[in-house]
Amino acid sequence: MACSVLPAAALLLGTLALLLAAQQATASYPPQVSGNTKEYNFTVSYAFWAPDCVERSIIVVNGQYPGPAIDVQRGDRVIVRVTNQLYAEGISIHWHGILQTGGSAYMDGSAYVSHCPILPHETFVYNFTVPDQVGTFWWHGHNAGHSSEGFYGSFVVRPNPAFGDTEPFQADGESMLLMNDWWHRSHQDQFIGLDIPQNPTSDFRFVGEPQSLLLNGRGQYNCSLLASVPAAYSAGDALNCSTTSPQCSPNTVIGPITPNSTHRLRIVNTGSLSFLNIAIEGHNMTVVAADANYVTPVSVKYLDVWAGQRYDVLITADQPVANYWITVTVRGRRPNTPPGRWALQYAGAPAGLPTTNASALAAQQPAWDNQNFTLAQQNLYTSLGGSNLTDPVAQNPTRQIVLVNSQNRVDGRKRNVLNGVAYVDPMTPITHTLFFNMTGGYTTGLISDQPPLTYNYIKTIGSPDNYTLATGQSVFEVNEGDVIDVVLQNGVTLVNASDPHPWHLHGMDFWVLGSAAGENFNGSTAKLNTVNPVYRSTVGLIAYGWTYIRFVASNPGPWFFHCHLISHMHMGMNTVINIKPASGVYPAPPPGSQMCGMVTPLVLQDFFLQGGRLK
Amino acid sequence: MACSVLPAAALLLGTLALLLAAQQATASYPPQVSGNTKEYNFTVSYAFWAPDCVERSIIVVNGQYPGPAIDVQRGDRVIVRVTNQLYAEGISIHWHGILQTGGSAYMDGSAYVSHCPILPHETFVYNFTVPDQVGTFWWHGHNAGHSSEGFYGSFVVRPNPAFGDTEPFQADGESMLLMNDWWHRSHQDQFIGLDIPQNPTSDFRFVGEPQSLLLNGRGQYNCSLLASVPAAYSAGDALNCSTTSPQCSPNTVIGPITPNSTHRLRIVNTGSLSFLNIAIEGHNMTVVAADANYVTPVSVKYLDVWAGQRYDVLITADQPVANYWITVTVRGRRPNTPPGRWALQYAGAPAGLPTTNASALAAQQPAWDNQNFTLAQQNLYTSLGGSNLTDPVAQNPTRQIVLVNSQNRVDGRKRNVLNGVAYVDPMTPITHTLFFNMTGGYTTGLISDQPPLTYNYIKTIGSPDNYTLATGQSVFEVNEGDVIDVVLQNGVTLVNASDPHPWHLHGMDFWVLGSAAGENFNGSTAKLNTVNPVYRSTVGLIAYGWTYIRFVASNPGPWFFHCHLISHMHMGMNTVINIKPASGVYPAPPPGSQMCGMVTPLVLQDFFLQGGRLK
Repeated sequence: MACSVLPAAALLLGTLALLLAAQQATASYPPQVSGNTKEYNFTVSYAFWAPDCVERSIIVVNGQYPGPAIDVQRGDRVIVRVTNQLYAEGISIHWHGILQTGGSAYMDGSAYVSHCPILPHETFVYNFTVPDQVGTFWWHGHNAGHSSEGFYGSFVVRPNPAFGDTEPFQADGESMLLMNDWWHRSHQDQFIGLDIPQNPTSDFRFVGEPQSLLLNGRGQYNCSLLASVPAAYSAGDALNCSTTSPQCSPNTVIGPITPNSTHRLRIVNTGSLSFLNIAIEGHNMTVVAADANYVTPVSVKYLDVWAGQRYDVLITADQPVANYWITVTVRGRRPNTPPGRWALQYAGAPAGLPTTNASALAAQQPAWDNQNFTLAQQNLYTSLGGSNLTDPVAQNPTRQIVLVNSQNRVDGRKRNVLNGVAYVDPMTPITHTLFFNMTGGYTTGLISDQPPLTYNYIKTIGSPDNYTLATGQSVFEVNEGDVIDVVLQNGVTLVNASDPHPWHLHGMDFWVLGSAAGENFNGSTAKLNTVNPVYRSTVGLIAYGWTYIRFVASNPGPWFFHCHLISHMHMGMNTVINIKPASGVYPAPPPGSQMCGMVTPLVLQDFFLQGGRLK
Repeated sequence: MACSVLPAAALLLGTLALLLAAQQATASYPPQVSGNTKEYNFTVSYAFWAPDCVERSIIVVNGQYPGPAIDVQRGDRVIVRVTNQLYAEGISIHWHGILQTGGSAYMDGSAYVSHCPILPHETFVYNFTVPDQVGTFWWHGHNAGHSSEGFYGSFVVRPNPAFGDTEPFQADGESMLLMNDWWHRSHQDQFIGLDIPQNPTSDFRFVGEPQSLLLNGRGQYNCSLLASVPAAYSAGDALNCSTTSPQCSPNTVIGPITPNSTHRLRIVNTGSLSFLNIAIEGHNMTVVAADANYVTPVSVKYLDVWAGQRYDVLITADQPVANYWITVTVRGRRPNTPPGRWALQYAGAPAGLPTTNASALAAQQPAWDNQNFTLAQQNLYTSLGGSNLTDPVAQNPTRQIVLVNSQNRVDGRKRNVLNGVAYVDPMTPITHTLFFNMTGGYTTGLISDQPPLTYNYIKTIGSPDNYTLATGQSVFEVNEGDVIDVVLQNGVTLVNASDPHPWHLHGMDFWVLGSAAGENFNGSTAKLNTVNPVYRSTVGLIAYGWTYIRFVASNPGPWFFHCHLISHMHMGMNTVINIKPASGVYPAPPPGSQMCGMVTPLVLQDFFLQGGRLK
């Protein structure tokens, strides 16, 4: 296997790249404006689709799965008109990784944090300026389990030559790789299983391991496993499984790429549960960006990508003209899903799949339970050219939150709680509660900066007898300008195991100062990198481990902060960081907004006090 | 088989009963008030359930399927606090047959006609006085296909002794029989199939005939048909089918009933598609009320019940103490569903099912395509003690609407259109558009009182070349006090067939002057009964036939008027009768209402014009 050759340009850091990194950290507002506007119309509907050759109903945008790609330049205004053509479900879209600076917290698309769900028949206009970020992002539904239903797509922000932007590397071509896990059952049925209360005849049903892995919306299930499903169950047409379906693999090919060129892969784990590892036969990958933040280039053979994470990697097409396997395996959980396999095609190679053995490649990828690999790779990344964590401000955290996740029974149901709290959506979006200054819009004082009990990572803190449990909203009230440290400490489940969790923060990126496995965070800074830590948006928390992050509370507004696993979100593993604006003024809902929950009746009451007729 | 003996009391019509009938027709407002309030809390959630022994996800209320029974007296105030615990779906509840008089059109529960969907986490308080009606009603979800998902229950209004109410018959006991068709696939998947546009590779998929018939939420599927479904598809637990499930038949028993007593059966077809016929082994049924309106008692062996209809029947337990079959068959459509069978148990009979052959009873029920039976029975019913259709007002219709349904392709999709219009929900409830006097809240002028072309029941009017087609809201604007005749004329589908349709009017009951099959309505009144026609809420329209109804436009507000088959509603077979109040004043939305669609942005705009702070 040839080593990757890092392009010379990657080693040359321009002033602009440093400037960009600094902007990312201090988040000046509003973002630099290009004066250009990119407009998209998204019509959201259901469709039957066969992503892994098995037909089921999914959510499509403009009839496409994955949904339309958004491709803009830094500083562009992005307008996405989202029309809901679902039957009864409300929707929202989160622009994952895009920091809604400039007072655009309403556009962040977390249902019940940012805005009310968009109801059927309605159109909501997302309208924001892409901030001082460049790189690979994605968008996805952010109400209930919609991102599990095919409701997602890619989002690329390119350097803006008008601002003199350059990137610290060069590539001759690029490809988008959206990879994810896939189930035959709907998120709704999955959630129903999670919500079964314990009683003498039934209990919690986990969603189980995925049936397939997909790349750019395509995988391949073994149809022979379904050959005996009777039409009597399926009403004759539900369990179509055909490997000749144009909607599924093995047609998926990345490329063709030009021999001897440098090719950029934009890799996103858009999945719901699985921590994935990707390998490319005969090619190393040089990681150049993590979550749209440049990193010191580093070459890897096997790339871990947690759910929600993005990596930009370069590959050099220096192998013989042929097709090469791309394989994806499940890590962190005992897999029960065949590795995904697709083709990387060189230009000039014959059409078709590689003739080598994909299983051999997958077998070389790190074992699902190889935590040392996970930890080493997670801590491998450093910010390119240093980090402004060396700034005096960022060096001085003003507050430390220790957030322990555990699994507990709350009201008879298994919930994933944080410092004793299982989060549930409020009926009123938190932006609205803040703007209208309403009491009771969300529960206050429920969560504290420390877990209720001293934590021990091997102790079963999940049992009700030693833990105060609550259901509601857990909102950390933070002052603008605070420097916040969060110690994410991984507790145990009710079966005395520990699951890996990818943590994602909206509104701001954070530095990953360090992570470890098999220990409590003991307060020592010995394992923390305060020199050039990677700056990113989603980070892994290893089983029985801790991860230490820091961010500057620079972006006023309420920001969702949560495990990105859809089932864990449903089970309560969320919190909100509300950054109180120094000005004391929260922005007003944008014109055309819908109201819901507590707001409408109050506004309507005012309306009637004013005479009850539209002006 | 013994003949039913009609209780003597049934022949004695009291003044009060006549008064009730008169009140029903002229709908004085507000309804008589008892001063009593009955309160219910409905928590709506999903659950796995096995109504026919096959597990699937359904919608339950307070964890029950069918949902809780409502049982009140005439004149009671009913308060139902409905809390939505679904994940992303909005809901509403219609109180089927309850006439929302007294300005309570907002409480009628047709999503997007009466009010906005109740969103997850929200509670909506239905609050209305049950009007001058007594008898058997039901309630069901009225957003998307929710009534197909188990989201329904019974609603009984009893005579109020405080008002001197009596009923024109006596019964020693009573039972509720909610019977319906059942599918293993969700309404959502069914709707997706209906919505597939025609293209070279796919087209419309009909929902198909039901897998089972249920009585009070229980039926029995043949589990052996599912024995081979692999766990690989179902994630290990989805296709449970067990006849020992406590949720399904054969445990369903009506009774025990006291030998030699008169027993009242309250029979409702809560189904989504199937026109049902019910028979009781060894017993005739004496029909005493249709849709909560007393009819001249008439004895039948086999009772047709269209979807949405209710009948009150009396049976006399004059047979030997034993268990007797209740069988239900599908009519009007070629059935592909085994007859439903349950037990009527006499007190003292051994536990268990009858030992006779249920199939023999079902085989005696009228054949699915025996239209003569259907027509004869539909026209058999007359109002008890005459009808106030003999009133001069009711004798003089002021407007005749000829409403032809046909099946057409609209924008590539198969739709069920009425006078050329395929109805779609507006984004703003029609009550709101009217109160706020908004332009564009619903399409106006789209539908006319006559079909675009002269109708011929055997002509394929469905082809686009001879029919002007449109999609939108079809709202008939009617003056309060108008006497409206509607000729429902059944056109043909795109495969040149004709389906039966149960038509249901909200807000008011109507007289059924007549119906026929195999002909165009030719304007002749020869087949119309203007002396003592039955007064009811839902009536059948026979394939290739017509049904002639009349109502007094006595209840101001917008009222949904539609085929009660869920798939046909989805395909557009709806219209709205808006009765413009003589006062010119539409009532304001009730306090606590949610807004949606066009209203919120306008109200919010006003709010900001007033300073943008809650008073």
